[in-house]
Amino acid sequence: MIKFSINKSFFLQALNATKRAISTKNAIPVLSTIKIEVQNSNITLTGSNGQISIENTIPTSNENAGLLITSTGAVLLEANFFINIVSSLPDVTLDFEEIEHHQIVLTSGKSEITLKGKDVDLYPRLQEMATENPLVLETKLLKSIIAETAFAASLQESRPILTGVHMVLSDHKDFKAVATDSHRMSQRKLTLENTSNDFNVVIPSKSLREFAAVFTDDIETVEVFFSDSQMLFRSDYISFYTRLLEGNYPDTDRLLTNAFETEVTFNTNALRSAMERAHLISNATQNGTVKLEIANNSVSAHVNSPEVGKVNEELDTIDQSGNDLTISFNPTYLIEALKALKSETVVIRFISPVRPFTLMPGDDAENFIQLITPVRTN
Amino acid sequence: MIKFSINKSFFLQALNATKRAISTKNAIPVLSTIKIEVQNSNITLTGSNGQISIENTIPTSNENAGLLITSTGAVLLEANFFINIVSSLPDVTLDFEEIEHHQIVLTSGKSEITLKGKDVDLYPRLQEMATENPLVLETKLLKSIIAETAFAASLQESRPILTGVHMVLSDHKDFKAVATDSHRMSQRKLTLENTSNDFNVVIPSKSLREFAAVFTDDIETVEVFFSDSQMLFRSDYISFYTRLLEGNYPDTDRLLTNAFETEVTFNTNALRSAMERAHLISNATQNGTVKLEIANNSVSAHVNSPEVGKVNEELDTIDQSGNDLTISFNPTYLIEALKALKSETVVIRFISPVRPFTLMPGDDAENFIQLITPVRTN
Repeated sequence: MIKFSINKSFFLQALNATKRAISTKNAIPVLSTIKIEVQNSNITLTGSNGQISIENTIPTSNENAGLLITSTGAVLLEANFFINIVSSLPDVTLDFEEIEHHQIVLTSGKSEITLKGKDVDLYPRLQEMATENPLVLETKLLKSIIAETAFAASLQESRPILTGVHMVLSDHKDFKAVATDSHRMSQRKLTLENTSNDFNVVIPSKSLREFAAVFTDDIETVEVFFSDSQMLFRSDYISFYTRLLEGNYPDTDRLLTNAFETEVTFNTNALRSAMERAHLISNATQNGTVKLEIANNSVSAHVNSPEVGKVNEELDTIDQSGNDLTISFNPTYLIEALKALKSETVVIRFISPVRPFTLMPGDDAENFIQLITPVRTN
Repeated sequence: MIKFSINKSFFLQALNATKRAISTKNAIPVLSTIKIEVQNSNITLTGSNGQISIENTIPTSNENAGLLITSTGAVLLEANFFINIVSSLPDVTLDFEEIEHHQIVLTSGKSEITLKGKDVDLYPRLQEMATENPLVLETKLLKSIIAETAFAASLQESRPILTGVHMVLSDHKDFKAVATDSHRMSQRKLTLENTSNDFNVVIPSKSLREFAAVFTDDIETVEVFFSDSQMLFRSDYISFYTRLLEGNYPDTDRLLTNAFETEVTFNTNALRSAMERAHLISNATQNGTVKLEIANNSVSAHVNSPEVGKVNEELDTIDQSGNDLTISFNPTYLIEALKALKSETVVIRFISPVRPFTLMPGDDAENFIQLITPVRTN
């Protein structure tokens, strides 16, 4: 039966990272528990919601963990409840001891708390994955790719494949991530430094957002593995599994074109503030839009929501060329597109009032492209 | 028609303070608006939810306001919407100008936003109050009295009078504030430095919490005025009105007694942490209680929730005297009572397992007394 002692803060941090895979509202009740497996030289914490699974390993060799294992075993504990209890304990260390009937006695300072656990055999078996030929990526880079694309995926289940981010590796080094909800699209390209096996997968955008929360910035690189139905992100101590979406991702390349009639360069933050003002007024009308007027070397934004009021604003531009044009769109899409840009300036190219327009960062027009579809008014 | 310019941040701060009286879910639609009245030398902002009303005055004489009034008038604007718009404006100052049909044009930098307003005659008239013989109180002191008592008032409307804090002045200087929800009671006494007219009122605890949020710590003193149905807290720029509760407040003095059989002194924070652990487990059972065992010069806390587990904890005490005793109660009441104590130590006096016990701060046992009713078990 289990017996170990551990540093409370370190244990809490690992529990909280694992908890990100655990939902209290799961249809399978046992998935609201956390699995604690104590081996001779480490503890493994496992959480899963059926879509995402996280395994967090705490080795005795990690000095910060202060982990001393006296006796091995495994048990299930209600995740939220157990974590709240651990965080309330008075001392810097805690003793964790299993007694009869899967009960756990936590001792810390003068406090002794007994909790009911469950038999570990009740926990579903996670699907195993072959871990050969990893693709090694910088965590920071992967998180930045996620921030640039995942927001553009659909939140609606009517076309499930669009709730994912399409990630493709071709010629062993040409990487592409793309997401679209059919109103807007965001695509990041990248040439990898390390070559790897080609892949072509659609990853739930929700899983990618959890990935970004679990893999903190002190984890420098992650190994990535693929199978037909799932993928694994792995660092020294954390294994993060997510299922993949099934189906064919639509061909988004055909949406991209180099043709344009009008090009305007803006300061990213100034344009975003102007769109946020426009959105406050357009938002009062259902499907409210902002109208951009590009004419006579000036650009202005206009909103008219008869119920509440209107906005007229002269926009500062850095550069402007091509034809005059008037185009209407949902300002939310432009606000979110600008949030995803880390560049100080943004280049926007227009073809016509009824064709999608293209956004590129001022400093990297090649590799990061976004499209927004206008709304026909008149 | 109105025309003025003002510093945006200063205006926002005054709008946000006024907004605290405004509820978007009001049965009277016009109360979701803010009233803006522009006179020759100041602007008055008014918000009300029918229970609380706030008037905020911005004088041209306040340099930080940067207020320049060109033309006077009054208008109503949707409070939340207007405040969001003002906070989105690009420049440090804004121009506010009324045009036809109660429309307002806000100009800031190159942004021009037109909003629909409403006729000021639609706004209900606030009840006037005589403002003679104020009671002058330090804001800090009043906020501290509120923090010590308002939490103990009832949240349930079944006995409306208990949702208030009973404040009484007798002999022109003896002040008492008391609140109870019939399970616990909190009473603060005080001898005023400035004498004033006697009063005996029951103030909604919700109004007092809003008072504490509106009157920031830079406001040193407030003047307090009473009428039969309402009271007014007034500083240089802010007038805060609240209605009073009608009815007779129960006689709470009869609950207090100097008799006791057992007295224990605890460190306030250590006892609170122990009760928070106990609450995590007791909370899993409906009406869950913690049992305190005082025996043989030691005090221990025990919870047993058959569903989830149990707690046994030895409590550190500073001093202990009198009879042995075992008493059960809802740990939430003790946690909230200890939060209201600013003293490092707390003295708790017990009479018997079925009589309320008394809490006093270690450094001021005379003037701040709380009672908690135990729960009979077995």
